[in-house]
Amino acid sequence: MTHVIVNVHLKSEILDPQGKAILGALTRQGIEELSEVRQGKQFVLKFENDLSAEAQSKLQHLVAEFLTNPVIEDFSIEVKNES
Amino acid sequence: MTHVIVNVHLKSEILDPQGKAILGALTRQGIEELSEVRQGKQFVLKFENDLSAEAQSKLQHLVAEFLTNPVIEDFSIEVKNES
Repeated sequence: MTHVIVNVHLKSEILDPQGKAILGALTRQGIEELSEVRQGKQFVLKFENDLSAEAQSKLQHLVAEFLTNPVIEDFSIEVKNES
Repeated sequence: MTHVIVNVHLKSEILDPQGKAILGALTRQGIEELSEVRQGKQFVLKFENDLSAEAQSKLQHLVAEFLTNPVIEDFSIEVKNES
């Protein structure tokens, strides 16, 4: 079984008001060392078998197209093979 | 600098219609080995300094309270110290 974990986050130059609200709330609760909070999305894709290099490359392309907005978001992909 | 990464995901018994829609879309695009897609949230918390054990335990408590809905969601926390 293979898990593909896709993390999608706002580009650093894009404002994140929800992250800012969480920063404020946590700071008021006494977590004062906090300097920034950013919110993103995580997709976990489960495959029954190991992924071929070809499938991985196709998937990378589809993730960029379907799961992210390239104008404001970046993404990273992590592939975890599990026996 | 310390990064605390909080991953929030729906409990496995909770339906995820958005994940299901993504599964359908990727399958129609030819990623046929895919068996499941689940969507979650990721929060990245940045600290200027290393976190004390006390601050980490407090943070864990606040994350559970503020960033998750314990009825339908689970979460995991990863602490990355960077020099």
